[in-house]
Amino acid sequence: MLIVHKYGGTSVGGLDRIENVASRVIKAREEGHDLVVVVSAMSGETNKLVGYAEHFSSNPAKKEMDMLLSSGERVTAALLSIALQSKGYDSVAMTGRQAGIVTDDVHTYARIEEIDPKPMKDAIAEGKIVIVAGFQGITKEGNVSTLGRGGSDLSAVAIAGAIGADQCEIYSDVDGIYTTDPRIEPRAKKLDTISYDEMLEMSSLGAKVLQNRSVELAKKLHVKLYAKSSFSDNEGTLITEESENMEAVLVSGVVLDRNQARVTLRGVSDKPGIAAEIFTMLANNNINVDMIIQNMATADGETNLGFTVPQSELENAKSVIEKFDHDIKGMDFDEKICKVSVVGVGMKSHSGVAAKAFSTLAQNNINIQMISTSEIKISMVIDEKYGELAIRALHEAYELDK
Amino acid sequence: MLIVHKYGGTSVGGLDRIENVASRVIKAREEGHDLVVVVSAMSGETNKLVGYAEHFSSNPAKKEMDMLLSSGERVTAALLSIALQSKGYDSVAMTGRQAGIVTDDVHTYARIEEIDPKPMKDAIAEGKIVIVAGFQGITKEGNVSTLGRGGSDLSAVAIAGAIGADQCEIYSDVDGIYTTDPRIEPRAKKLDTISYDEMLEMSSLGAKVLQNRSVELAKKLHVKLYAKSSFSDNEGTLITEESENMEAVLVSGVVLDRNQARVTLRGVSDKPGIAAEIFTMLANNNINVDMIIQNMATADGETNLGFTVPQSELENAKSVIEKFDHDIKGMDFDEKICKVSVVGVGMKSHSGVAAKAFSTLAQNNINIQMISTSEIKISMVIDEKYGELAIRALHEAYELDK
Repeated sequence: MLIVHKYGGTSVGGLDRIENVASRVIKAREEGHDLVVVVSAMSGETNKLVGYAEHFSSNPAKKEMDMLLSSGERVTAALLSIALQSKGYDSVAMTGRQAGIVTDDVHTYARIEEIDPKPMKDAIAEGKIVIVAGFQGITKEGNVSTLGRGGSDLSAVAIAGAIGADQCEIYSDVDGIYTTDPRIEPRAKKLDTISYDEMLEMSSLGAKVLQNRSVELAKKLHVKLYAKSSFSDNEGTLITEESENMEAVLVSGVVLDRNQARVTLRGVSDKPGIAAEIFTMLANNNINVDMIIQNMATADGETNLGFTVPQSELENAKSVIEKFDHDIKGMDFDEKICKVSVVGVGMKSHSGVAAKAFSTLAQNNINIQMISTSEIKISMVIDEKYGELAIRALHEAYELDK
Repeated sequence: MLIVHKYGGTSVGGLDRIENVASRVIKAREEGHDLVVVVSAMSGETNKLVGYAEHFSSNPAKKEMDMLLSSGERVTAALLSIALQSKGYDSVAMTGRQAGIVTDDVHTYARIEEIDPKPMKDAIAEGKIVIVAGFQGITKEGNVSTLGRGGSDLSAVAIAGAIGADQCEIYSDVDGIYTTDPRIEPRAKKLDTISYDEMLEMSSLGAKVLQNRSVELAKKLHVKLYAKSSFSDNEGTLITEESENMEAVLVSGVVLDRNQARVTLRGVSDKPGIAAEIFTMLANNNINVDMIIQNMATADGETNLGFTVPQSELENAKSVIEKFDHDIKGMDFDEKICKVSVVGVGMKSHSGVAAKAFSTLAQNNINIQMISTSEIKISMVIDEKYGELAIRALHEAYELDK
């Protein structure tokens, strides 16, 4: 098989750990596979460099940041290649540019536009293990670019797609995707398989194993993704296309997101364009709105408009909305909330999943402030202090520990 | 003027020092100059990365080493550019590749083959201060290459030549070139001017301010070089073409080189090809031979052949020569030697300079083991323990403190 491995910062966070990664790569090699290995910077390196830059400027130029930050992955790639060679394996380290990764010019958050697979394929044909510095590429103008935090996952998936790899294994310090956060519910179970869509809902909701953009890209490119631990030999979780088999499972997981704040606009005039105006203003200020709830207007032509934003963006959101001086009677903000979500492709074909969630919370005297649903997800905003209780109750209600 | 600055590892060895460099660059900018600034890695970084590589392999692949080591200069370049921008100056950081530096493919010790000055010139025309990561370039095949230790000096000089800079200022923690090492002779004086050739003799003999390859290149490209300190506002030393004025000065400096070992081959057959064979073998093993002395053969057709090698290469030299099993009666080695040299373009037109050196050592009862002379240099191998005494005596004899 042709396999892409990706090792995150914790997995390469020291010389002994790079040694460990080399052993894993060699094991896969000895099993007869061709390999491209994508690596992150050693953990702490990127933060150190960001700290250096912030010493000089609170808002350093993004192009300069990209030159700065791309150095960490290069170090790891070179070291891993040296480690493999010292054990008698033929390998070659490549920067993003050398691996043919071309991005747009949105520095520090670039998108991969194309990958020329030839350099990697040629090296594989020569029998080499290819090591690629993750997180980076080059713009058409020849400048170094980076893909944003977690961008090494994205590099790995994009490379897997470009070279037609049979699978892409993402190694971190977590050995897969769980039905919920095991720190909240010790009975949480590791999933063998999960669909791309479920994974997207899980990761955007706080399960931090896989970066969302990379799951989206894997879905688009039909890349079979494995989430595995570099510190154990456990099986990991396969993230792949939805299968009929999956739908037999009603719910795959329940997720807690503590990092939300609620904004409610009261007495909003019920006329066209108001909501558009508000959310355009928020978007122009780079505020990510998550849930949005609007009810039917009352008889007097007014409604309430509620939405959630990440807590870190609440102050920003406040100052944007406070400038909005017409067609609104008032506003209030609440940071003491959290969002619990139930995720599963099985919901599509089963009724009663939402009802079970609501009744489970009701049985525990937890008031639901906002509800939002999609085809495979039910999210509920509740008082922050009930978050963990809600997760444990839902985990049990859907029999996720079975 | 169009000026190239180059700041070494000590000058950028911390965030406060990078701040200091930014201030110096701004000062030159405010004086109306156009600037290209070449930077080294923060001091200690390169050694740290070498240490990492050596953890995995005693002989890491040179191509991988280049990817590894080139990262340090990129960090400094990005940080300096961020520092300048934060103070309101327009700047752009470039890697070796982006600055158009193309080298041969001798990894870790590449030679610059050409520089495309357009990217730098375009940026200067746009009013930008150009910051270039030193020590690195790119091969024609697109691989990252480095120029060897001290290669940032070489980058600076080559860039100064390529863009037609009026001068190239090399900043370190030393404020210029002295008549001798001030730690040995406190009365050593800083030179205002020195010729390229004198500088070459001085630096190859142990004055570590400027890397030899960069002085050679400056001579070839007619680049006016200044050696200055980044920690003071002293004038520094100008290294430039030889002038008549210079020849009035008999001797510019005296230099001590402790890092030498002597090899003597006894009873070497006086027939053609023996010396060639020996030195070819040494060269093939990358052993740098410095002085070579051979006297006329004696009546019985034998001679002694003496030469010096760096102490660090003596063991290597021994094992090479011990394999040489014909036409030699014996060999001996001496590490307890040093080399003192007297350097000055004035020697060309003045007689008696060598005689004064010999008599000065004789007056101090220092026995001279080997002598080698060039147009502008007299070198003498003596017992190690007399090295400092010899330097002080010669410094006084040539009135260098006046």
